[in-house]
Amino acid sequence: MTERITASYWIETAFGLQDAAATMAGEQSTGTFVRVPGETDELREAYAARVEEIIELGQVSSPSLPGSGLPKNGNTIRRTARVTLSWPIANFGLSLPNLLATIAGNLSELKAFSGLKLLDIKLPSIFLDKYQGPQFGVAGTRKLAGVYNRPIIGTIIKPSVGFSPEATAEQVKVLLASGVDFIKDDELQSDGPHCPFDKRVKAVMKVIREHRDKTGKMVMYAANLTGEIDEMLARHDLVLAEGGTCIMASLNSIGLPALKVLRAHSQLPIHGHRNGWGMLGRSPAIGMSFIAYQKLWRLAGIDHTHVNGLDNKFCEENDSVIASAQECLTPMFDKPAIGCEIMPVFSSGQSVHQVAKTYAAMGTTDLMYAAGGGILAHPMGPAAGVTSLMQAWEAAVSGVLAHEAAIGQPELAAALGVKR
Amino acid sequence: MTERITASYWIETAFGLQDAAATMAGEQSTGTFVRVPGETDELREAYAARVEEIIELGQVSSPSLPGSGLPKNGNTIRRTARVTLSWPIANFGLSLPNLLATIAGNLSELKAFSGLKLLDIKLPSIFLDKYQGPQFGVAGTRKLAGVYNRPIIGTIIKPSVGFSPEATAEQVKVLLASGVDFIKDDELQSDGPHCPFDKRVKAVMKVIREHRDKTGKMVMYAANLTGEIDEMLARHDLVLAEGGTCIMASLNSIGLPALKVLRAHSQLPIHGHRNGWGMLGRSPAIGMSFIAYQKLWRLAGIDHTHVNGLDNKFCEENDSVIASAQECLTPMFDKPAIGCEIMPVFSSGQSVHQVAKTYAAMGTTDLMYAAGGGILAHPMGPAAGVTSLMQAWEAAVSGVLAHEAAIGQPELAAALGVKR
Repeated sequence: MTERITASYWIETAFGLQDAAATMAGEQSTGTFVRVPGETDELREAYAARVEEIIELGQVSSPSLPGSGLPKNGNTIRRTARVTLSWPIANFGLSLPNLLATIAGNLSELKAFSGLKLLDIKLPSIFLDKYQGPQFGVAGTRKLAGVYNRPIIGTIIKPSVGFSPEATAEQVKVLLASGVDFIKDDELQSDGPHCPFDKRVKAVMKVIREHRDKTGKMVMYAANLTGEIDEMLARHDLVLAEGGTCIMASLNSIGLPALKVLRAHSQLPIHGHRNGWGMLGRSPAIGMSFIAYQKLWRLAGIDHTHVNGLDNKFCEENDSVIASAQECLTPMFDKPAIGCEIMPVFSSGQSVHQVAKTYAAMGTTDLMYAAGGGILAHPMGPAAGVTSLMQAWEAAVSGVLAHEAAIGQPELAAALGVKR
Repeated sequence: MTERITASYWIETAFGLQDAAATMAGEQSTGTFVRVPGETDELREAYAARVEEIIELGQVSSPSLPGSGLPKNGNTIRRTARVTLSWPIANFGLSLPNLLATIAGNLSELKAFSGLKLLDIKLPSIFLDKYQGPQFGVAGTRKLAGVYNRPIIGTIIKPSVGFSPEATAEQVKVLLASGVDFIKDDELQSDGPHCPFDKRVKAVMKVIREHRDKTGKMVMYAANLTGEIDEMLARHDLVLAEGGTCIMASLNSIGLPALKVLRAHSQLPIHGHRNGWGMLGRSPAIGMSFIAYQKLWRLAGIDHTHVNGLDNKFCEENDSVIASAQECLTPMFDKPAIGCEIMPVFSSGQSVHQVAKTYAAMGTTDLMYAAGGGILAHPMGPAAGVTSLMQAWEAAVSGVLAHEAAIGQPELAAALGVKR
């Protein structure tokens, strides 16, 4: 195993950038604060992390995070930089849990830094010897959903909690009647005592199968099976037995090893919910970018993941949303050319209003586009809501302005609020 | 399941504190941005999260995090507060993964907040119906290590990576000869191709058993088995078969469900390494405090965890270190009175110099005290290093100043740098 992995970081420090980067490399490979006996030059050459690149970015007026130290030379000016380190795989082997301890580990707590965030990672494709990557990805998901040449239009079961299995199925009936392609559980509802997973899935799948028998359309239902490992495997089996075509898990709740087990067992696409990612991703000064984050989960086997949406109701900027979504569709490896591409899921306040700019930014319809109010609150009803979204996407792909396309398409017109 | 769990947060917002807290409660229970059909008053009463308490803390001059919004009333003053919410367990059941999605989830990304950090959680003891908690804890660890009435003195194998199994065993021999009670792998070394777990454990346990046969002292070795679930279970079995008395895992690398499986399988104490915690814990404006964090892992089954140390080489303040350590020894539940207490592990730049104030702050010796340079770099050699630490603790417990105790105790005198 002579290949290396690289990881890039945003750093903020009052220390010399070379010294600061060397501290990072030392702490996360052979180093300790004091050189110990046995730490020979040969050993350092073979196992030490390397500083590959330092790009200085600018100064800051005050430290972003508390607890940082200042160098003995009296400098108090804090500079920022993008630092890239590399490690030989020989240090940790083909192991995502141990890779994580290496690229993250204690780095965030180093005193030399008043800011340190993991921005990106690059892994060699030898990791595919151990990890399976997405089983379905974009093409497999399209096939199961029977949706081509446009986004998969999705929606979510609301309220998040409180519905009984029967009430959930009633709500799903309403959503099915709208013509939607994809329905997901809320991340807050997995197996609450008043809406147990098994009863909910049986009730929901019954109405989904009935809908299929009537219309020929098999709607994809992402059943939230988040839980302990044995529970998740049993729940997967139930979804499969009920004819379901998707499972969903909260990634931060279950961890990479549990996802690996689920992926190995699963015969269904895994809808990876990133809730809790804000803890890692929101601050520019600490944590992990979604660019790095999603690579770990793709390799471990998710098929879809959430990327927020343009003009969303959360705090994420549009540029960040688009970068995340594009990354999901960008091949992870050069050779072999196995991309591990997954479906980005746009959601949060999405409606016909964001369609044109989403397509302009993405240049593809390989995505899921999930709307709540944009479907249920359509003035002509939920079916018109779904139709209006499809019309908006068709217009965007055809290069027609939404307002022009709305002429003769009353659902889109109503969604856009066009006066007649 | 009529019990409720509570979670407390530090928040920073320009919105009214009542409104902001209500937004949090809504987002993480029945709510959505728009009230939907079916979301009745009865349903809200039964399932909505409740705002239990709001303690205003003060104003900030600028937003701690980017992306926050301002209220329509024109207010731009951002206030901070400690907010406590509660949820009925009926919303998610006895499930730590789903609890996590509820108490963390999308909260950090809400636009109303320019800062939001989880500070603490309180769970009812009914969770013990599902989770096992620590198997060994303080008493069980002491029994296995044969150490009573003083801290367990520990050290770490360095360099972190690069040693072969044989070289690791040679290093362990040196550490054993020092008289140390506890030796741990580095978190960067689990199963690297040049130091495979199985070969390392066999080589290390051989010298540990030889040491036991010679001295009667069974030194506890925390073998870092971090990896995939099947790997971790097999590695546990090997450690057990080799007569080992401890296993170690990187918590953030493996996740709660994997730890639950490991705990159910394990016959050994689990040394829970918190590396990566800085990503969650370092910023005061986002993430999760160690107080909340360690409760999740204790319930899932760890027996020891790292708390940094006083005057450590990382960025953490002493007050935070002591609060974390005290929390590990504080009972988690009132009734039944099962405390799930675990051993706090002090490490990072620890030496005789921090002993007196560590004891003064903790008021107990129920802890592990790990030193690297404080042992290996002792001027009279590693054995004197360990002896000096034990002398320093004995002095502290007896209420004798270290410099006074050093008279007639040359190891302590040398460690303190006392001139003769």
